[in-house]
Amino acid sequence: MSRASRFLDACFLRPSDCTPVWLMRQAGRYQPSYRALRARVPFLELCRTPELAAQVTVNAVRELGVDAAIIFSDILVAAEAMGTKLELTEAGPVLPEPVLNASAVERLRVPDPTEAVPYLLEAVRLARRELDGVVPLIGFAGAPLTLATYLVEGGHSKTYSRLKRMIFAEPATAHRLMDKLARTVVGLLRAQAEAGCQALQIFDSWGGVLGPGDYRRFVLPYLQQVMAGLEGCGVPRILFATGASSLLELMAASGAEVIGVDWRLGLDEARRRLGPDRAVMGNLDPGCLFLPDPELEARVGETLGEWGGGPGHIFNLGHGVLPETSPERARYLVETVHRLSARSTAP
Amino acid sequence: MSRASRFLDACFLRPSDCTPVWLMRQAGRYQPSYRALRARVPFLELCRTPELAAQVTVNAVRELGVDAAIIFSDILVAAEAMGTKLELTEAGPVLPEPVLNASAVERLRVPDPTEAVPYLLEAVRLARRELDGVVPLIGFAGAPLTLATYLVEGGHSKTYSRLKRMIFAEPATAHRLMDKLARTVVGLLRAQAEAGCQALQIFDSWGGVLGPGDYRRFVLPYLQQVMAGLEGCGVPRILFATGASSLLELMAASGAEVIGVDWRLGLDEARRRLGPDRAVMGNLDPGCLFLPDPELEARVGETLGEWGGGPGHIFNLGHGVLPETSPERARYLVETVHRLSARSTAP
Repeated sequence: MSRASRFLDACFLRPSDCTPVWLMRQAGRYQPSYRALRARVPFLELCRTPELAAQVTVNAVRELGVDAAIIFSDILVAAEAMGTKLELTEAGPVLPEPVLNASAVERLRVPDPTEAVPYLLEAVRLARRELDGVVPLIGFAGAPLTLATYLVEGGHSKTYSRLKRMIFAEPATAHRLMDKLARTVVGLLRAQAEAGCQALQIFDSWGGVLGPGDYRRFVLPYLQQVMAGLEGCGVPRILFATGASSLLELMAASGAEVIGVDWRLGLDEARRRLGPDRAVMGNLDPGCLFLPDPELEARVGETLGEWGGGPGHIFNLGHGVLPETSPERARYLVETVHRLSARSTAP
Repeated sequence: MSRASRFLDACFLRPSDCTPVWLMRQAGRYQPSYRALRARVPFLELCRTPELAAQVTVNAVRELGVDAAIIFSDILVAAEAMGTKLELTEAGPVLPEPVLNASAVERLRVPDPTEAVPYLLEAVRLARRELDGVVPLIGFAGAPLTLATYLVEGGHSKTYSRLKRMIFAEPATAHRLMDKLARTVVGLLRAQAEAGCQALQIFDSWGGVLGPGDYRRFVLPYLQQVMAGLEGCGVPRILFATGASSLLELMAASGAEVIGVDWRLGLDEARRRLGPDRAVMGNLDPGCLFLPDPELEARVGETLGEWGGGPGHIFNLGHGVLPETSPERARYLVETVHRLSARSTAP
């Protein structure tokens, strides 16, 4: 039963037989099985077909031997559920009608998940059935700020100038947008927990767009709203951000049980700054999966050493698996984390 | 004479009559005069025409009232000078033949600046002549890591997976590339100083691509090589990076007199971590230029307050002026920095 329990044990700071590990984007283009499926099914159709989304979710667990599954979906299903158009192109997501002003924000709806994303909830139910007793299933959503960047910029951005214009020049509109996004995110996450997810992750991939003062004003209140809305679900809440080394304490102030960090910050420093009552997820540079075996093993040892032993560490990459990664390397990583941590985290 | 001296005084930690201020991308698309010129001259042609590059450099100083000029150019002229093809498209720079392996690295040349970028050096001479006694002129180059991302990725990247593959799977090739880039950067910067630049800035816009351990192995040695190669120029060296909050002490270990930081880190924390013998440049979020006057003034006051008075602060944005910025806002920012800091930094 240890594999089935070690991820949740770590989230709740309980000891386990070894350090649990899963990988962001563990279901993805680096897998031959995934590429074969995607050769005949477009990405959004895959997200919307519960049997296929569940299959992709479970495949990653079987192929890698990780200690948690994450439901296959995309943070931008929230944008669609709120009533915006969404296209996924080779160059990334495109929202052809960006949300640029107060009336566009008013038009956004806070969706009922059972009506807006029934396919996602059905995928959760199917995956959970397959994985029950094997490993826990994580549900997820984008954080309000990260979703706001896509909605307002209409896709990826280097400068986030449209969102910044809204935040600084039309703060009431920005707050209204963030409130609608927070309520949407709560709905999506609660529904996933009710459908069977045993942990919930909030991806704030662009969490570092703002500095500490503006994060406190425009981001933290809505993360707190999200976390408060998930009280009573009884599942651990993971808040992950990239480029947010200077915001760690503010991320913790959201109330999340687990803080996910990228490779820019040593786990020793993260642990020191977050204190003993917070679990930490991370943080190997995904590029380390290009290293040969002995050096990859050494890096795993360094990361475990930076954590320094004891419960509360969930091993992960600092961001998603790169598409160029070989599946063998990813499997070797998972096996190495288990092997090297077997003693250090034993109760 | 105070306007002419306050920027260099701050770089060298000497008191001045008020806090010096200049803005990254102070010559750029937000200016009607620049847009008018660009309507008839493509970007790279502008860089390559000394009279026009000097004019654009000087215009920004005249229009804004800033305390330093920066020569109008682009960090990617270095890539061309090394022998790679370069196209500037609407979506950003494209290097159609990326540097993907050892033989491609071998083919790169370490250019003689007087042969490779005579137009840049002539622009420096022309601009310096116009600005002499008004404000100092800053020369610049990309940092080796940032240039490496463009050379290896062939343009912008979200994951830097090609560069990471080279760094982790072919470290000898990556080191060879970084060495060639460091020597190129030294040559470009020394030549600009000899042509008349009174300060030199190294832009490490993607400085946060790697975590502290890999930064120490793959980035810092080459920054130290660059700084050592500039010893004897007698001009202050500014190292600017974004997304590098966790790397501040390592940036300082490069030896640069001035560390430029983005808005993700409070200036109080930057000052505390860097200690009293380092000047700091930064760090207002460029989005703050969308704020109305009273709030922009309050933000300037906050930033000056975070620094806490005393010499060694050069006011700047945390990154370049956004193209959507109104020139009036930028002028108001400069005037406000001067007004609010007039007492606090007086000797």
